[in-house]
This record gives sequence, structure tokens and C-alpha cells, in this order.
Amino acid sequence: MNGNERKKRIVMLGAGFGGLSFCRAVDTSRAEVVLIDRQNHHTFQPLLYQVATAGLSMPDIAHPIRSIFRRKKGIDVRLDEAVHIDPEKSEVRLRDTGTIAYDSLVIGVGARTNYFGNDRWEAFAPGLKTLDDAALIRQRILYAFERAELTDDPAERTRLMTIVVVGGGPTGIELAGAFAELARFVLRRDFRRIDSAQTRIILLEVADRILQSFTPGLAAKAQRQLEKLGVEIRLDARIKEINHDSVILEDEAIPAANVVWGAGVRASPLCDSLPVEQDRAGRVKVAPDLSLPGHPDIFAVGDIVHLVDAAGKPVPGVSPAAMQMGRHVARILNRELRGKRGARAPFRYVDKGIMATIGRSKAIADIRGLRFSGFPAWLAWLGVHLVFLVGFRNRVIVFINWIYNYFAYRGGARIITGLDRMFRMNNHEARPRAVVEANPLPPTGPPREKSP
Amino acid sequence: MNGNERKKRIVMLGAGFGGLSFCRAVDTSRAEVVLIDRQNHHTFQPLLYQVATAGLSMPDIAHPIRSIFRRKKGIDVRLDEAVHIDPEKSEVRLRDTGTIAYDSLVIGVGARTNYFGNDRWEAFAPGLKTLDDAALIRQRILYAFERAELTDDPAERTRLMTIVVVGGGPTGIELAGAFAELARFVLRRDFRRIDSAQTRIILLEVADRILQSFTPGLAAKAQRQLEKLGVEIRLDARIKEINHDSVILEDEAIPAANVVWGAGVRASPLCDSLPVEQDRAGRVKVAPDLSLPGHPDIFAVGDIVHLVDAAGKPVPGVSPAAMQMGRHVARILNRELRGKRGARAPFRYVDKGIMATIGRSKAIADIRGLRFSGFPAWLAWLGVHLVFLVGFRNRVIVFINWIYNYFAYRGGARIITGLDRMFRMNNHEARPRAVVEANPLPPTGPPREKSP
Repeated sequence: MNGNERKKRIVMLGAGFGGLSFCRAVDTSRAEVVLIDRQNHHTFQPLLYQVATAGLSMPDIAHPIRSIFRRKKGIDVRLDEAVHIDPEKSEVRLRDTGTIAYDSLVIGVGARTNYFGNDRWEAFAPGLKTLDDAALIRQRILYAFERAELTDDPAERTRLMTIVVVGGGPTGIELAGAFAELARFVLRRDFRRIDSAQTRIILLEVADRILQSFTPGLAAKAQRQLEKLGVEIRLDARIKEINHDSVILEDEAIPAANVVWGAGVRASPLCDSLPVEQDRAGRVKVAPDLSLPGHPDIFAVGDIVHLVDAAGKPVPGVSPAAMQMGRHVARILNRELRGKRGARAPFRYVDKGIMATIGRSKAIADIRGLRFSGFPAWLAWLGVHLVFLVGFRNRVIVFINWIYNYFAYRGGARIITGLDRMFRMNNHEARPRAVVEANPLPPTGPPREKSP
Repeated sequence: MNGNERKKRIVMLGAGFGGLSFCRAVDTSRAEVVLIDRQNHHTFQPLLYQVATAGLSMPDIAHPIRSIFRRKKGIDVRLDEAVHIDPEKSEVRLRDTGTIAYDSLVIGVGARTNYFGNDRWEAFAPGLKTLDDAALIRQRILYAFERAELTDDPAERTRLMTIVVVGGGPTGIELAGAFAELARFVLRRDFRRIDSAQTRIILLEVADRILQSFTPGLAAKAQRQLEKLGVEIRLDARIKEINHDSVILEDEAIPAANVVWGAGVRASPLCDSLPVEQDRAGRVKVAPDLSLPGHPDIFAVGDIVHLVDAAGKPVPGVSPAAMQMGRHVARILNRELRGKRGARAPFRYVDKGIMATIGRSKAIADIRGLRFSGFPAWLAWLGVHLVFLVGFRNRVIVFINWIYNYFAYRGGARIITGLDRMFRMNNHEARPRAVVEANPLPPTGPPREKSP
């Protein structure tokens, strides 16, 4: 590799946990790195549910990508989106700026919400993968409470005050717990006619228990903590249909103004165009070194990867795995950029433990077999998430928010934005139905004296 | 007034500065108060420009209305919008929840952006009256820099890096100054190909000087401070047309990807249906007590009011005036609710001074004839705005943001949201034009060795 002639170009697709870790670890003195993302910010996905549930505001968990790599030379950040990869020509076609050639390509474009063939449900049951998703969910939930406050129809009020969360994995658990706290504590004193604590939060899980990635004992603890918050958990629940006003199960229809989908993810459609085997969730089956079989110049990282690692363990789609993969690929390429050849090291996932949070002082953790729950687990969860939040400022602000919310039980981000646009678009779906003048105020009012 | 029979009902339209001050001061032991706003939050409008210029995030300057009146009984908050007022029947028709009858009505629905008959310009030159306006401006500006970074066409790059601010009043000044700081300091180290400090910021003012509400001396100081930041000020500038890629003056066309309209406001269209004289900006000409002439049960407050007060001074459309008006009307109604009759006190505006900020350590202030500029004025501006920011949490967060931004020169809210929606809507207007592969990277790349 006669590096003096021309620097190699590495294209990194996606600035998620995998992409950021890769760019931090890669040696840019020997290669130019182009980092392409369709957003201008990295989103701290583990805390998205707090934006959806009005606990944090959007910039708290997002950080401009350019700002992250301000001090690292040789990382060229571009706002664009890959639409096709051509391994033969070694180039990527982008949505806006033509094609870009690469010497090495690292794909970390992440996963999308998976409706398992029922994409029509998306309009009624948004998933939670981006800031805009989180803002939409927050807007719909808060607006439903406003509508409930103004309706006289008890059935409609119940429907407006019912939130269905689909999926009993960590995302579903965290959403259900946070919605319960929002309704029971944060919003409680806000309304005059409705009692927001009567909000029904229903968690649907298709399997016979929640949190399958945890031990049955910890999952049972989480279930009890959720039930203590008033969350109704329905196991073995199969959804037949979701429409604008209800979720239809095999034996029951649940009228609900809001349904949030946390039931599964699928690798980005970009993966479908790659010449490589995929699993049922669209994830690409990579070689042990994370490259695509037969394409040693293309790597995949993060939750688009299907891999049983060198230790025989399937690698889960979690952020620590994505970060480790990003660093692994960077080490391989750094070595080869220095002209070293020979077999590449296989990727080995180091499982530092798993955690899920249910709410204030409620969480479960399994750190290498050390299992605990309640307040210690919640503190551990808090610490880990703060440490990993990108950027100093965000850390301070989020910390202040959390401390404040802990003591005051007040979500700081209960702002509904986009209402004007919603009404301009004349979106009747989203507007109140059967909303009438609330008691005890008669529509026209009794006779009155005029002021002098 | 036999108050034991039925409480009087006061309807307050709008939760701006006037509406909040009214609701805080009104005696709810003798009247029920219904506060109606089309947003669920009060927006601290004096800091909207900081959201538009990526200095603050949206929840920093917004506070849920319900939360403000949590501890005050008898304030019934409703998310809705008045569409018609019928003074004969004493009722208000609402967009969503039918009609509501009132004994007393206070109108504080505020002003909208005024394009002076050129409403088609709104699509290209958004105004700055709501959080959504601010988010839209921020999105467009930040996205234009991203597009500039990726284009090879020098003219297009210049166009993308040109921001025109229309209007040399306080809003225009604050926007121009904050855009200049964003481009010169905050974004400067973010980009590799463009030098964001070369951004052209052009302030257009139709009169022969900026800041007409200030003395010529202070306005000249503000002008010098703006010019020091690199803002080009064009006086006597008449706009003939604004379209998707330029602003056309009488003698010049300025290619600009972003135009922001800060040139004037007009009272909400709701005022047009009132049986009362209006001025050219649609503001209602009220009686000295702020009631509508001939309708002593209807009051107007805030910047929909046209009034020369009891001291012979025209009342400006600023937030202190709105707050004083809200309190004035509350005092009148409180007195009458206690059964007192007799002549009402006329409103008298107490001018505590005016200020405008240009940027970090740059501002002007005129406090009852005491005129100063620079750092002391900026500190005064900072203090006044912090004191008036509604809500404890916001104050702390905004303060931390400001301190942090002051020392680090980093805007904390440089997040572009809504990009996905923008692209889904296939809004070609907003998409990059003539964006090609940037130098020095050739489209397909030279021949290369494959990795082993």
C-alpha cells in the first residue's frame, strides 16, 4: 500500500453508536473518512422513550455530528442518505449528491420499526426510532389528554385516556412505565375534569412472558413493578388489527386513541440490496470479522448485523454491541492501513450486562450474573446512561432534568408542537371527535346582568 | 350582583403575556375563569429568535399553561381556538368545542406576521411568532449550511450562505445579530469545505434608520455593533418581490436561500369580526379602560390593542404593556365582582424602558432616559429576560445554556428535526439543487487495490 500516492477513502454510512465509535477509533492520518447520515445529529436512542413521554426535550438526547468530530481531522461529515450500494463498482449512490466511491465501506444504517407485514398499522401505531417519531408520539398523547378534558362522552373519554404499548421488550417496558408515571404523577394536577391517574396503559406481549432477554426471575420483578404503576399486562396477546380508534385482539377490541409500537425492528431497506444472506429481520449475515462474505472491503456494524460471535453467542442488537463492532472494524482497517496483512481477528461481543428501567426508582439489571432490581438498579441505569450520553452539555442538562423531575415529579417537556400545522393540514383523524361543551357550563349560559 | 346564585364566567382568549397576567391577578373566588389558547403552552416570545438561531431549544422558552395555573383554583384551561365572537349573544364560537357563553370576555389573542398584502411571500420568508415558526427557520438555515458544504457551484454556495432579514426593528436586529454569531463563531469549526464565517447576513429596513423606537444615538450604536459582526445593513430598501431563491429590491436582486420576515405584525384575524374601529394593523381601538366602546363586558389586551393612554402616550406592542393591561383588566373586574360600581380607572402605561440585544456583550438600553450600550446593556437585558421567563426550571436551564454558550461559543440546539417528513413530502423546494460530488473526491475514484 503506497499510502503516499493517495489516501484511501473509507465511507461510513450512519452516525449511530456503531458509526460514531468507528469514526472515533479509525486512524485518519492514513485514510480520509466520509461519514454520511440522513440526520445532522446523533440520536441517543436509549433515551428516546423519555422524549416520547415528555420527560426530556429533543436536544437533550441529540448531538450535532459535526460538533462531535470538531476536533478530529479527516472526518468529513455529510448530510445525505445512501440509497444503493454497488459492490462491483465500489460506490454508493446517495439521495442528493450523486455517487461516492470507496476503498472501504462500513454500513451502520440501523434498524426501522417492523410491523411484520402490517405496514398499514404505522399510521395508528407509530414506532420509536427517531426524534421525529418521539415528538409525534408525545404530541399525540398530550393532545389526547387535552381532548379528554373537553369531552362529555364517557366512552370517548376512556378511549382518549387509553394508551396501548405493543411489545414487552425493554422499549415497551420503558414506554409503559414512563407513560404510567406521566399520567399518575406528572399530569395529575394539571386537569380539572379528568383524573389523569385513571389513564389505562395496556402492554401487549405476544409471548407468555415479558423481557425475554432477562431471566424469568428479573422479568417477574419488572412485571410486578409495572403492575404497581397500574400498567395492565396482557401476555399471549395476538393483534389482529389496529385502526384509528382501537386495537383488535383475538378475543377483545380495546378502544384506544394512542397505540405505540415497540414490538420489533427490521434492518434498514438498504440491506436488502446487498449481495448477502439476510435473516428474517433483514439483518445481514456477516463473516466473523464483520465483513460481508466475499466482500472484504465492506463491513456491517450495529443492529443490521446477524452474527453468532466467536464465542458461540448471538450478538444482540444493543448499543454496546454496536460500539464494540465499530471499534473492531476500526482496528482491522487501522492495521491494514499501516500495511499489515494476514488474517483478521474475529469479532467477540463482551456482554457487560443488561438493564431495563420501569420508572422512578424502579429498574432491573443483570450485570454478568449479578442480578438486582429496584432503586440500586435504577441508580446503575441512571449512571450508565449519563456516562454514555454524548457531549458534556447534554449530560449536565439531562442530569439537572432528572434530578428536578425526581424531586418535583414534573416532566419538563410537556410542550405540544406542530398543532398549527396539524390543523392547517385539516387532519380530521387527529382532531377531537364528539367533543362538546363540558359540564357544568351550559352552551349558551343563563340570563345574566351586564356589567355597568 | 347576587354572587351566591351563580358565579360569573370570565372567558380569557389567549395565554400570552396579557392572558397570563390577567389570570394571575383575577379573583377566582368570585368568578370562574376559562382560559382558552390554541397551544398547550405559553411561549416566551422575546426569546423566540434564540430558538430560530439554534441558541435555545423549544422547551427552554415554553411552559405548559396548565402547569402555570396548577396551584390557582378556578382557572379552567382549554386547548381550543376562538373563531368568532358574538357580542349580542355574549358568546364565543370555538373551533373544536362549540360555543361558550361569557359574562365578561378578555381578548388577548396577539398578533400575526404582517406581509402587508404580499401573503405569497410567507412560503419563502417565514415570520417569527410561534415555536413552530422558530423551528422552521432553524431547520431551513441549518439545512442550507449542510447543502452549501456539499455543492461545487460557487454561486449556489453563496446563495445558500446568504440570509436576508427583513425589518430593522428589535426582532430583525436580534435575528441578524444572532445569525451572525451563529455563522461566525458557533458553526465555524463544524464544516470542512465552507467557511461559515463568510455567510452574508443582510438586514433590510424600509426607513432611513433602524430601531425607530430608540433614540438616533442608540440606534447608531446598535448599527455599529451589527456591522462589527459583519451584518450588511441596507436602509431605504423596498422589497419588490420574494421568491424561492432571491429577494428582489428596486435596484438589485439578492440571491438568498433564506429570508426571515421581521418587518411587522398585524392583529389576529379574530379582531376583524369585532364591532369596533381598527387601525391599519388591524388593532382594535379600545376605550380608556381597555373595553370595546359600547361593550363594557369585552376587553382587549396586548398587541391587538390600539390605544393612546391617559398620559397621551401611544402604548407599544411590547410584553410589559401586555402584562400591565392584563393586570388592569383584572383589577377592574375584581372590583366589580365585589359589587362595587362607578367609573372604571383608565389604563396608564408605565414605560420601564426598552432594550434590544445584538449579540454576546452587545446590546442597547434606554431605561427612563438612562441610555447605555455594550456589555452593561447586555447584562441588563440578560437579567430582565431571566427574571421574566416563566417557570423555575426554564430559568435554570436557560441560564446554564447562556453561561455555557457564552464561554464555549457553542449553540446547544443545532438539531435539524423534521427532515424525514420534509423528504417524505417530496418538497423539492427545500431540497438541494445542483448539488454534486464535492472536490477533491472524484465521482468514481481511481483504481485501487482491494484489501486482502
